[in-house]
Amino acid sequence: MSQIHQPQLPPITEIELDHGFRATIEKWFEYSVVAHPHHTDYAGIVWHGNYLTWMEEARVEYLRSLGINYADLVNLGCDLPVIEVNIRYHQSMKMGDRAIVKTRMNEIQGVRIHWDYQITAEESSLIYVSGRVTLVGIDREKGKIMRQLPPLLKDVLVKS
Amino acid sequence: MSQIHQPQLPPITEIELDHGFRATIEKWFEYSVVAHPHHTDYAGIVWHGNYLTWMEEARVEYLRSLGINYADLVNLGCDLPVIEVNIRYHQSMKMGDRAIVKTRMNEIQGVRIHWDYQITAEESSLIYVSGRVTLVGIDREKGKIMRQLPPLLKDVLVKS
Amino acid sequence: MSQIHQPQLPPITEIELDHGFRATIEKWFEYSVVAHPHHTDYAGIVWHGNYLTWMEEARVEYLRSLGINYADLVNLGCDLPVIEVNIRYHQSMKMGDRAIVKTRMNEIQGVRIHWDYQITAEESSLIYVSGRVTLVGIDREKGKIMRQLPPLLKDVLVKS
Amino acid sequence: MSQIHQPQLPPITEIELDHGFRATIEKWFEYSVVAHPHHTDYAGIVWHGNYLTWMEEARVEYLRSLGINYADLVNLGCDLPVIEVNIRYHQSMKMGDRAIVKTRMNEIQGVRIHWDYQITAEESSLIYVSGRVTLVGIDREKGKIMRQLPPLLKDVLVKS
Repeated sequence: MSQIHQPQLPPITEIELDHGFRATIEKWFEYSVVAHPHHTDYAGIVWHGNYLTWMEEARVEYLRSLGINYADLVNLGCDLPVIEVNIRYHQSMKMGDRAIVKTRMNEIQGVRIHWDYQITAEESSLIYVSGRVTLVGIDREKGKIMRQLPPLLKDVLVKS
Repeated sequence: MSQIHQPQLPPITEIELDHGFRATIEKWFEYSVVAHPHHTDYAGIVWHGNYLTWMEEARVEYLRSLGINYADLVNLGCDLPVIEVNIRYHQSMKMGDRAIVKTRMNEIQGVRIHWDYQITAEESSLIYVSGRVTLVGIDREKGKIMRQLPPLLKDVLVKS
Repeated sequence: MSQIHQPQLPPITEIELDHGFRATIEKWFEYSVVAHPHHTDYAGIVWHGNYLTWMEEARVEYLRSLGINYADLVNLGCDLPVIEVNIRYHQSMKMGDRAIVKTRMNEIQGVRIHWDYQITAEESSLIYVSGRVTLVGIDREKGKIMRQLPPLLKDVLVKS
Repeated sequence: MSQIHQPQLPPITEIELDHGFRATIEKWFEYSVVAHPHHTDYAGIVWHGNYLTWMEEARVEYLRSLGINYADLVNLGCDLPVIEVNIRYHQSMKMGDRAIVKTRMNEIQGVRIHWDYQITAEESSLIYVSGRVTLVGIDREKGKIMRQLPPLLKDVLVKS
C-alpha cells in the first residue's frame, strides 16, 4: 500500500525484524477476473464485498504457482485466516469489465503474512481497488496461533 | 410443487411409503427477509442464486423453532446436505422489498427430507419464488448416506 | 435433464415447436473452475448455492465465445433473467478440487432459453452436479417479456 | 474504532471541520445476526468477506430506523457507494453463533460518511470484528461525487 497511498515513503528495504523477516516480493502475481452479473449490485457495478473473493482466489493461486496447495496446507493442520483487511475503492468496476488482481506478499512478521493488492483494468492503467490483507498462521488442532509458520510455507515464500 | 402451483389438487394424505413415511406439515414456518443492496444485481433485483441463502436460513430457523440446533446436529455427526433444488421465479424482488420465506417439510422418504418453499411479499399475496429443496442425512464420520435419520431429528419432524 | 440421467433415451431430434424451435447444440461449452475457500461451507465442500455463480459465468462466457457480450445485450435493452432452476447434486466438491462446467443451450421456446449443465471433475468422469436453467427475454424499458428474442441473439444461438 | 484500538485517545469532541462537521452518534444501532451454514467456510467459521453483508444490512436498517429508505434514496438519484473498508478480525464466529452488529455514524466529512462497527457476541462481551466503512455521496445521473449530501439525509444524520 505504501506505493499507492504514501508515495513519500522510502522504498521497502530488507530489514531483519524481531520475530520475523521481510520477504518483499517485488514482482506482482497476476490473476485475471471478469465482472459477471452475480458480482454486480443494483448500481451495475461490482458489489464492494465481492472483491474479497477475487483477492482470496489470487492469493490461493499465487501459492499454487509456488507449489503450495492451500487445501493440502489445511489438511496438514495449518490454517491461514484473515485477521485484517484494508481496502480502498478508487473506481467502480462495471459488469463485463475485465481486470487483473495483482498481489504480492509484502512482509512476514512472525506468523503474520501481509499481502498487498492492486486491482487494475486489463487494458489500461486504471486502478479499481487497492488494499492489504493480513493472514496469521493457526494450528488447527490446538486452535491457537502458531509459534512459527510451517517451514514448507516459510521457505517457499522467502525464496520466491 | 404441486401443492403450490396446482391448488386444485386434493390435500395430501398420510400415506405409509416403502422406506419412509409422509410427515407433511400443513402449517408453513415463516421467516422474514429484506432485499438489501448486496442481494441485488445490475437489474436492481435480487440475484437468482441469493434466494438459496434465505431458503437455508428459513430451514435452519425452522429446525431451531422445533428445538434442533443445526450446528449441534452437525457436531453430533449428522450432516444434511442439499441433493436437489428446484426453483421457479415468478416475480422479481426489488431492493428494499420485504418478503416472507414460507417453508414446510413436505415429506420424509427414508433419509431424504423434502422441503417446500414459497417466498411471498410481506404486504400482499404476490409470490416471488416457489420451490422445493431436498436434503439427505449423511453420517459425517463415514462420509456415507445414513440408513436412517437420527431419532432426535426424525421424532421432532414427524411430531411437528 | 433426460440427456444426462437417462442415456438410454433416443437422441434429440429437430422438432419444430409451436412458438419456437429446437436448437440443441450437441457440443458442450466448457468453463474451468476451482473450489476456493470462499466457495466452501463448514463441511469443507462447495456450498450448494455457489454452483449457480459458476453456471452463470459459464453461460456468459459461452455467449461471449459466440460474439455476444452480455453487458452489451443489457445496455441494448434486453435482459435475460433466470425463471427456473433445477439442480441435482451427485457428488460433493471439496476445497481445491478443479472442475469443468459444461453447458449447452438445449432449446429455445419462443423467448425462453433452456440451458443444460454438467459439472464434472477435471481429471475424471465424476459428475458433481447436473442441472437445467431457463432464461427468458425481457424488454428492460417496458419491463415485460419480449415477443421474440433480439435477432442478434437468436441468430447466433441457432447457428452455433 | 478509537474505543477499541486506541483507548488512550481522548473522547471525540465536536469539532467543526473544513468542509464538514462532526456528528458522532454516541449510541450504537444494534442489528442481530446468526451465522448460518452459507456464511461459513471450510473451517466452520464465518468467511471473512461475509461480515460485509451484515455491516451493510446494519447500515441500511439503521437508516431505515431514522426514516430513510435506502432504495428511495437511490431512486431519488443519490447513491452511497463504499470507498474504504478497514476491518480487524478478533475472534472467529462459528456456525450457529449469534451476534450483534453495532454501528454508528462516526463522522461526516463533506460528502463522506464514516461508520464505525463492532460485532459482538449476543450473550457476552466477546468482540468478533471491529471496523470502519466510509461511504461517499454520488449523484447517480452525473456519475460524480456530490458537492453536498442531500438535505434529507444530512439533516436526519446530524439530528439523530
